[in-house]
Amino acid sequence: MLSEFLLSEMNRLGSQDALPLHRQLYEALRRAMLDGKLGAGERLSSSRDLAQDLGLSRNTVVAAINQLSVEGYLVSRVGSGTFVNDNVPRVNPASAARPHLRGAPTVAPSRLSARGLALSTTFCATQLEVQPFTPGIADFSAFPLTLWQRLQNKHWRMTYPDMLDYNDSGGYAPLRRAIADYLRVFRSVQLDADQVIVTTGTQQSLELCARLLADHGDTVWVEDPAYWGAVKAFMATGLAIHPVPVDDEGICPSAADNAQPPRLIYVTPSHQYPTGAVMSLPRRHQLLSTARAHGAWVLEDDYDSEYRFSGPPISSLEGLDTDGRVLYMGTFSKVLYPGIKLGYLVVPKPLVAAFKQAHYDLNRPGQMPMQAALAEFIEMGHFSSALRRARQSYGERRQALLEALKPVLAPGTEGPAISGAEQGLHLCLRLPAAVDDAALAQRIAQQGLTVRPLSAYCLARKDLRGLVIGYGYAPLSDIKRCGPVLSAAVRSLKKT
Amino acid sequence: MLSEFLLSEMNRLGSQDALPLHRQLYEALRRAMLDGKLGAGERLSSSRDLAQDLGLSRNTVVAAINQLSVEGYLVSRVGSGTFVNDNVPRVNPASAARPHLRGAPTVAPSRLSARGLALSTTFCATQLEVQPFTPGIADFSAFPLTLWQRLQNKHWRMTYPDMLDYNDSGGYAPLRRAIADYLRVFRSVQLDADQVIVTTGTQQSLELCARLLADHGDTVWVEDPAYWGAVKAFMATGLAIHPVPVDDEGICPSAADNAQPPRLIYVTPSHQYPTGAVMSLPRRHQLLSTARAHGAWVLEDDYDSEYRFSGPPISSLEGLDTDGRVLYMGTFSKVLYPGIKLGYLVVPKPLVAAFKQAHYDLNRPGQMPMQAALAEFIEMGHFSSALRRARQSYGERRQALLEALKPVLAPGTEGPAISGAEQGLHLCLRLPAAVDDAALAQRIAQQGLTVRPLSAYCLARKDLRGLVIGYGYAPLSDIKRCGPVLSAAVRSLKKT
Repeated sequence: MLSEFLLSEMNRLGSQDALPLHRQLYEALRRAMLDGKLGAGERLSSSRDLAQDLGLSRNTVVAAINQLSVEGYLVSRVGSGTFVNDNVPRVNPASAARPHLRGAPTVAPSRLSARGLALSTTFCATQLEVQPFTPGIADFSAFPLTLWQRLQNKHWRMTYPDMLDYNDSGGYAPLRRAIADYLRVFRSVQLDADQVIVTTGTQQSLELCARLLADHGDTVWVEDPAYWGAVKAFMATGLAIHPVPVDDEGICPSAADNAQPPRLIYVTPSHQYPTGAVMSLPRRHQLLSTARAHGAWVLEDDYDSEYRFSGPPISSLEGLDTDGRVLYMGTFSKVLYPGIKLGYLVVPKPLVAAFKQAHYDLNRPGQMPMQAALAEFIEMGHFSSALRRARQSYGERRQALLEALKPVLAPGTEGPAISGAEQGLHLCLRLPAAVDDAALAQRIAQQGLTVRPLSAYCLARKDLRGLVIGYGYAPLSDIKRCGPVLSAAVRSLKKT
Repeated sequence: MLSEFLLSEMNRLGSQDALPLHRQLYEALRRAMLDGKLGAGERLSSSRDLAQDLGLSRNTVVAAINQLSVEGYLVSRVGSGTFVNDNVPRVNPASAARPHLRGAPTVAPSRLSARGLALSTTFCATQLEVQPFTPGIADFSAFPLTLWQRLQNKHWRMTYPDMLDYNDSGGYAPLRRAIADYLRVFRSVQLDADQVIVTTGTQQSLELCARLLADHGDTVWVEDPAYWGAVKAFMATGLAIHPVPVDDEGICPSAADNAQPPRLIYVTPSHQYPTGAVMSLPRRHQLLSTARAHGAWVLEDDYDSEYRFSGPPISSLEGLDTDGRVLYMGTFSKVLYPGIKLGYLVVPKPLVAAFKQAHYDLNRPGQMPMQAALAEFIEMGHFSSALRRARQSYGERRQALLEALKPVLAPGTEGPAISGAEQGLHLCLRLPAAVDDAALAQRIAQQGLTVRPLSAYCLARKDLRGLVIGYGYAPLSDIKRCGPVLSAAVRSLKKT
């Protein structure tokens, strides 16, 4: 019955849109889920069986299933198959009908688009509560609010009408200079202040890159496992997301990956999110030459480079780039506070004019008095002091977490091991492939702690298990108090 | 030679992507322009000749040309044909090659995508300087900065850590309540505070609607002539823009328009931008029933409803909506100041959860202390006072402009006439169809004044000529001083 529905949907789609077969099957499967013909939690037939039932090649079926998995409609469970994700909402069939596609007017109000449904139900950042160990969250309680308020006051007093208007020059000039000076010295980025575009943060930086450098349907390589926010930005801008596995040296494209040539390559080379892998120097050169061969742009997200605790300092990938194909981005949300909504994007010189124009027209940037306050905050050394204090405080938390986890580590290659603790505000506790890390994270959540299963960040791969553990949010006392709870939960694994 | 190039491009496109013919021709023509095979300013053969040369139906050719005109690649000049827009940049052929589409790696760095090129070169808001009479700009020099600074200070002092974080509830609750109260009373919008989503302004509101309610390639009806910012938001979100003519009673879809059923309908009913037409009540009911028949959503942009000078007060289209298909949006940039980057979107109840979730994940909203200051600014009546003062001041400017234009008005249906002066910060001086309004605007610009030719806002239609004249930006003395210069320039038309 399901295959009949799929075949008739594919037939309908094929007759009107001339979509490739795997895309027709993707649409038909998605429709089956939204209409409730494939219910939440239901098991999908194997790709082999589906291919036979539908008279399609197995490659076609696998391609459709992979895309649905990447977008979160389907989930794979090791050894038991592929299932419809529990959070795929069922849509009222009457309202889900998209009459306009067929030109047949109807009275039923339509609802979310397919894109809208994916954007509002998959890779959502709010699925878990913020508690001790939630990754990706900094502790902004130490931010010098009084000083910040004084600076803002000063710049509001100095404000002239232009500062209240939109800004079309890529941001407040002294702020762009301050960012350029910082990046040149601390991140070995090669740049003039003119190449800096002040954005509202990494989401806006990513969308600007995706829109200006790629067309709808173009392929973007995304690290697997990946940062959800980036996946979402690429979904929103209509790119085809091709996951490329990450190993201990960073992104590692195979010949099969190279057969899906990218228009964009998104990487977090100095501290891969979430595994924490640092991209090795040979791998960096290799990536740049792969990008060159494909004529692709590289998007370097240096989201937490401010916090490095051990190992040699790592300079940016951009600093190695000899032919201007790396776009570098960072944010102030981790050193100042998230709600400030200020980040930056560094673009190669030939792109500057187009990026500034489109940024102005699409985003109408503003908040100039706040940009002025931030420029002075950096110039007067307050940013460096805040960073120094934060680095010290996070360093202590990190140390406490490492101490707490020591008893669970096993020296073998199979046992629990830590990766990515050299930098940033989280580390990754790798677990044996047989462990159900999602269930473990849930047991830990029952004790009032939030860690994220590494498998939740995986797009296509099934081999990674672990816990992504943040030490940025909770104060040292909480880490010391809760660390043993965490490690006891992990130790309990061995007994079961 | 051109037709050979077009045919070979179409052949290539047809073989790989299964695009419809008019889309293949669209792509081939665009490529010809970017590669310089069709130079800037060059005249295109007539659609009849092109159809014959390429062996295509004339409808196919017309569809491709219309799309390129809407996107700004082509411009039509009355009586002389269709030309390549002067600002279409030529792209280095080597770098424009998109090797990844064909899977053939190359060393040439790629450049902007087709989407990026369109977004950074068409409908750009910065093409003209801001001077007296520039439309779309308010005078924020009168904004009570000291009071605003005091309120911000107060809320920064009261700030608790959550206020520094991102916000996932659609905005600061007291601000959402204040907006809801204002809209209920002054705009007859039917809503609870829960339906209000605080955005960074109309661009973000439009993109959120386009992404959540429409899929790539879906049709959006846009008023012709149109607000550039909306066109850009829809281009950026991959919608097919279908222009629908506006008459004195607002948007006026024909049977031909209904044959292009929309997923979204974007309107500015209380003061059409830029003609200033007020949508009549029968037309409002008609539009809602058309939307119902197509299962479409209506996006109501009420961008300057705060300033109404004459005629009966007009309530929102949303207020007439009985089945929850209108999304209503407004902005604080015209009453406070543009750089504040705060606006609002009111969504029907069934959409609230999905919109808030996606808004959080895609945009990571922040700036809570500023939202708190704004909430108090409204609650304490400062917003109303600022509005009252501004209304008085703009009213005087409007009066001075109307006085200055009086001598050029002709009583006949063909002579210069004013439309849209009842509301907002601009009016439209309609001119006979034979006038070259772009040339007139350029002559006026040489005298240090900026007005925009009405034809520049037209998407597909060729019958509108006029000047869009703003009275929001320049002080009364400037309007009085420059008004006669403006009217002299218009009067000089009759002599030539």
